Amino acid sequence: MTIEEKVAQLGSANPSHFIEDETLERDGVETQLSDGIGHLTRTAGEGDLDPKRAALLTNQLQEYLIEETRLGIPAIPHEECLSGYMGPQGTVFPQMIGIASTWSPQLLESVTGVVRTQLQATGAVHGLSPVLDVARDLRWGRVEETFGEDPQLVAAMARAYVSGLQATDAVRGDDRDVHATLKHFAGHAMGEGGKNRSSVQIGERELREVHLYPYEAVIRNGDAASIMNAYHDIDGVPCASSEWLLTDVLRGEWGFDGTVISDYGSVALLDGEHGVAANKREAGVAALEAGLDVELPNTDCYGDPLLEAFEAGAVSEATIDTAVGRVLRAKIETGVLDDPFVDPEAVPQAFNTDEQARLARTAARESITLLENDGLLPLGDDLDTVALLGPKADDDQELLGDYAYPAHFNQEETDFEATTPRDALETRGADAGFAVEYVEGCTTSGPSTEQFDAAAEAATDADVAIACVGARSAVDLSDDDLAHRNQSMIPTSGEGSDVTDLGLPGVQADLLDRLTKTETPVIVVLVSGKPHAIPEIAETVPSLLHAWLPGEEGGNGIVDVLFGDHNPSGHLPLSIPKSVGQQPVYYSRKPNSANEEHVYDDGEPLYPFGYGLSYTDFEYGELELDAETVAPMGTLTASVTVTNAGDVAGDDVVQLYQHAENPSQARPVQELLGFERVHLEPGESKRVSFEIDMTRLAYHDLAMNLVVEEGSYELRVGTSAADIVDTAAFDVTDTKAVPGSARSYLTQTSIEPIS
Amino acid sequence: MTIEEKVAQLGSANPSHFIEDETLERDGVETQLSDGIGHLTRTAGEGDLDPKRAALLTNQLQEYLIEETRLGIPAIPHEECLSGYMGPQGTVFPQMIGIASTWSPQLLESVTGVVRTQLQATGAVHGLSPVLDVARDLRWGRVEETFGEDPQLVAAMARAYVSGLQATDAVRGDDRDVHATLKHFAGHAMGEGGKNRSSVQIGERELREVHLYPYEAVIRNGDAASIMNAYHDIDGVPCASSEWLLTDVLRGEWGFDGTVISDYGSVALLDGEHGVAANKREAGVAALEAGLDVELPNTDCYGDPLLEAFEAGAVSEATIDTAVGRVLRAKIETGVLDDPFVDPEAVPQAFNTDEQARLARTAARESITLLENDGLLPLGDDLDTVALLGPKADDDQELLGDYAYPAHFNQEETDFEATTPRDALETRGADAGFAVEYVEGCTTSGPSTEQFDAAAEAATDADVAIACVGARSAVDLSDDDLAHRNQSMIPTSGEGSDVTDLGLPGVQADLLDRLTKTETPVIVVLVSGKPHAIPEIAETVPSLLHAWLPGEEGGNGIVDVLFGDHNPSGHLPLSIPKSVGQQPVYYSRKPNSANEEHVYDDGEPLYPFGYGLSYTDFEYGELELDAETVAPMGTLTASVTVTNAGDVAGDDVVQLYQHAENPSQARPVQELLGFERVHLEPGESKRVSFEIDMTRLAYHDLAMNLVVEEGSYELRVGTSAADIVDTAAFDVTDTKAVPGSARSYLTQTSIEPIS
Repeated sequence: MTIEEKVAQLGSANPSHFIEDETLERDGVETQLSDGIGHLTRTAGEGDLDPKRAALLTNQLQEYLIEETRLGIPAIPHEECLSGYMGPQGTVFPQMIGIASTWSPQLLESVTGVVRTQLQATGAVHGLSPVLDVARDLRWGRVEETFGEDPQLVAAMARAYVSGLQATDAVRGDDRDVHATLKHFAGHAMGEGGKNRSSVQIGERELREVHLYPYEAVIRNGDAASIMNAYHDIDGVPCASSEWLLTDVLRGEWGFDGTVISDYGSVALLDGEHGVAANKREAGVAALEAGLDVELPNTDCYGDPLLEAFEAGAVSEATIDTAVGRVLRAKIETGVLDDPFVDPEAVPQAFNTDEQARLARTAARESITLLENDGLLPLGDDLDTVALLGPKADDDQELLGDYAYPAHFNQEETDFEATTPRDALETRGADAGFAVEYVEGCTTSGPSTEQFDAAAEAATDADVAIACVGARSAVDLSDDDLAHRNQSMIPTSGEGSDVTDLGLPGVQADLLDRLTKTETPVIVVLVSGKPHAIPEIAETVPSLLHAWLPGEEGGNGIVDVLFGDHNPSGHLPLSIPKSVGQQPVYYSRKPNSANEEHVYDDGEPLYPFGYGLSYTDFEYGELELDAETVAPMGTLTASVTVTNAGDVAGDDVVQLYQHAENPSQARPVQELLGFERVHLEPGESKRVSFEIDMTRLAYHDLAMNLVVEEGSYELRVGTSAADIVDTAAFDVTDTKAVPGSARSYLTQTSIEPIS
Repeated sequence: MTIEEKVAQLGSANPSHFIEDETLERDGVETQLSDGIGHLTRTAGEGDLDPKRAALLTNQLQEYLIEETRLGIPAIPHEECLSGYMGPQGTVFPQMIGIASTWSPQLLESVTGVVRTQLQATGAVHGLSPVLDVARDLRWGRVEETFGEDPQLVAAMARAYVSGLQATDAVRGDDRDVHATLKHFAGHAMGEGGKNRSSVQIGERELREVHLYPYEAVIRNGDAASIMNAYHDIDGVPCASSEWLLTDVLRGEWGFDGTVISDYGSVALLDGEHGVAANKREAGVAALEAGLDVELPNTDCYGDPLLEAFEAGAVSEATIDTAVGRVLRAKIETGVLDDPFVDPEAVPQAFNTDEQARLARTAARESITLLENDGLLPLGDDLDTVALLGPKADDDQELLGDYAYPAHFNQEETDFEATTPRDALETRGADAGFAVEYVEGCTTSGPSTEQFDAAAEAATDADVAIACVGARSAVDLSDDDLAHRNQSMIPTSGEGSDVTDLGLPGVQADLLDRLTKTETPVIVVLVSGKPHAIPEIAETVPSLLHAWLPGEEGGNGIVDVLFGDHNPSGHLPLSIPKSVGQQPVYYSRKPNSANEEHVYDDGEPLYPFGYGLSYTDFEYGELELDAETVAPMGTLTASVTVTNAGDVAGDDVVQLYQHAENPSQARPVQELLGFERVHLEPGESKRVSFEIDMTRLAYHDLAMNLVVEEGSYELRVGTSAADIVDTAAFDVTDTKAVPGSARSYLTQTSIEPIS
């Protein structure tokens, strides 16, 4: 390979730049692809191409690369995906914070199986998800993309995401014909001020145990094929040029063998923002030498600037070769080197199937988390009139998370159609014989209260009022976009849409205030990727649900839960504070942080981690251990019997926490150790057993060695971090250092039914 | 010395526990002091003793120790001090955040000279101040105790504090007959959630350059005799047991040779809160071995538990000896070993002097920071009626910061008398012939709006209204205290009084809203140790002053400024945000943090660091450098001519910032390099010259070495961090590593008048 051919493998080209009227524009192709290329950037998403057109174009591009470049090496076409394949017609599942609320890795694996199918159908073999950031500052717009605040829950969900997308798991081995991307490496959720790209201040122990942990858990299990750096710096060192992160820890300690790709534009930011590089050439060299293999979405720094650096002797050919080798290996693994072509005629079968819609509906209803219920729910069908209100009740896009195709591109006009709460409720009303009176009431973020009277009137005249409120999600709008829109569509969630308070945007809280002054009971449905700090509303309304951003079947999911066709079983993947200034309230604070209170505050969150109500009652037996003392390399089984003591079937999420009595360094007051979602018919009992590898208790000691310490530990079983039902203690004796590679990251859980 | 005698030197006894009716209670003395003692805890403050009684009692205790213990070693009597000697009759100067607003180390040195005199008069030789915490989360109640957000400003003020209290400086040598205490080591301002004692997450580079820097600056100059650990943990390691902090860095790197004393109760918290010790014995050993010499305020862990540990072989005699040696050295330095007695008859001369009152008034008026003025100020005396309103206008205690004696002990009844704004205004009114109509309007934190009508009426009938509002300061009240009080006195500033929002407490904002609806112009005087995020008020009122917590002469200081007897020259020592959720907004963020904005926010603070208005105008000439290239060990002089272009005399604070163009690690967008407060008569010009040692540009590189990097730097002169008047660039060439000990921490500034 010539040096030009090698360097070309380290960048990406954006086909939308050389498509005209959905046709390949020959000059662009020849300018950008003549030496080959590493990746193709979002052919469908950027080009706004339907799946079949995307497949055709991808085939054309691969054909060009094979037939008309000297070496004939095809590219890796990548697309964004998060709650679904991010191109036209992609199935839109609930945003990931909602999926995390299901506490069901199994469900997520099914969801990303669909994403995989749709990516592959269009010829894409690399998806830019999942997000492993551990979210503890809810101002950050990307909280909705995460699996919440707990590293164990994030790790478990991330493994499921990867397993479904790559169609690999630790048991079946490692095909990896689609590559998933773990991002944003590392600590992206912790930007100061809750702002995207802001500096992160964190100590190494906290970084490793909270923010690196999910990556390590997935990578040590061999699952991850790719990883994406984060935009920010940690303590002054940009992640894009951190050799410690991208090479020493990632490859040296964890044995990662995949590709490190750049978050879009992050290499250039070494020059343009962090200032640690004087120009794009220095930026490219710094990133490449740190271990960042592929620049996305273009060749801003890894193109001509890197070539110039090589010619000037500023970077060695060996460094370039290492990265090129990884890219070529990825092309072998994904199969594109062997055969990159897809059958355009087969594409439609991968989209818009009934099975996909059913899965989207299942995911939507399983993610819904019931926060308050005085018995009003589930609703019966014996209603005359239901008032449906709020900006989230009848707008397709308001149901979607960022990185869902129609939301991410802020498309005002789109042929995307979701089932909105209004659609679903009217369908149900037509069947059951009740009328639905719909009044929007206000927009998500606009100032107008013009419709308040009409909304209050509709509520007054109805048996029950359902108010769907929350934050709009999308990437932040450019000033230009803003100038062309009214104030009704400002996103306050999604990438770059970071906020200074956690209330409801616009006049939505005022609308609720108005509605609750009527005599009609008001059910509030939060349709929002952002947890809202709304203590007054929570105290006032009889029923409150968090439906997150439930995706294209969101309306059906919500109505299924409201009317009891589905018994809600979502549990919060993060603690919700009472105000922005009370943050952080994550459950696993250290004792001194947990003990201290603010003036006028009891220190408790509005809702704790793991919390969620059901239409039935679950009862717990005693937590039982099979040993009182355990060696550090041993295992312990903790078991508890859970019984459905109510009248309806339902799912419970059994949560197991651990607490170290006298650690040598200050530890969290408790940490999640395992969890299991169990389905129980009325009256049914099941025995849930957690088989715990003692290496799970390891943490980094003063010298940053991973050790399991001798001493007493307490296990706690509960229905949330704040509702512990029973505890049991054991001792660890006969300690020795745990070799890092022996650390086992996921609890094995077994469930046996009890007759 | 027996082991009991040695261990006794490492603890402290609280005389208030063995005083009855101000007389020594013999049994208590014999029980606690028979083996000698290291310190005596707040004899005057805890015992509520007037200075002469405190002196008499201290003499008695020292006499007992000399005459009736085997070795006859006197104790080190310590008292709290911050804005003044913290006992009855101590002069109460403005709280330190106000002193920092003067940007006048010279003034502070005079202030702590008074503190020194009062401590010494009562027989105390050790003061538990200053606070070197660098404050960037304004929810923290102790922000008022700090010198603000910038490590350079903190370092300069801390050196002045120490120099005045110890009567030492780098030039005159090191007498240290009173010991100052640098606290709270380290990073205490950064507790998560802005809560006292909360965990601190921070990387080593930020820790060293921001939070350790002021300590290092003072210690390397040889000034500091004592240091106090902080309560919290950093990344899981409690400061009380951090050998890295207390020994490796403090003594090993910086050469500190004084005593490390514990924050009250912090050794016991290793067991009771952090959980890293299983009992008090383990806690004592951990702290002592880490390098913490003296436990305060008692012998909870360093008494019998430490003796038991020694007997069990859990701690070596050599470790104990090292700490004892340091304590004895302190007793030699402070002179108590030679002669601990004071003349009780001479005590009154050290208190309540006219000179002290004048200095308190000077400090109060120099700390006042004018934030808004549409020309209404200064007021003339041609007024008929002035309305004076607000809970801060006529309450002695509302003018005081925490650790001022009457505030810290939450004394409802006290014979302390301050000059309140009402006192001062009525005096002025009587002289000038205007009437003062005073209505409180509301309490600081209570809910009652009963007096709003009366307040509005008073405002309506007046020529001008002056509203004094803000947060009450004191240590947090116990639940028991709260139960016995109404809601009108809840402290929302001071130790443990951490808050979730930065608005005005209670109904004060509503009162202002009501007042501004009258046609009378409303001057708002913030009397508060807490910066308040009040953008609406700032926009509405014609004049806004921050008078901080101005101490016993606060009323005079405020009226001096309002009527132009003093031209305000305070400048903010921290950036004030627009809301709690916008935090942090400190000016020296890194570029990525500074670039990012929240939705609905432009990213700018309400008021920037260094900002402050005057009744005159200052004009700046060009910033001139005496060299274009400088070697890393060289010096550079930057000069600018400042002219008073207005009609009244005034002080300006000239601020010099630096910016590194291409550092190897991400750096703050700019950093304060030097400052100078200059007095200028109308029409007068002065040339201000900053002589800059290039080692000031050093920072910690990737390997945590302190280096000055080759490259371009920009100097910026301005009137705040956001108002840069001129810039000049230079290059550093011929780089090499800077030996740590050569680092020069304070800018040499010279001022020459220009005719």
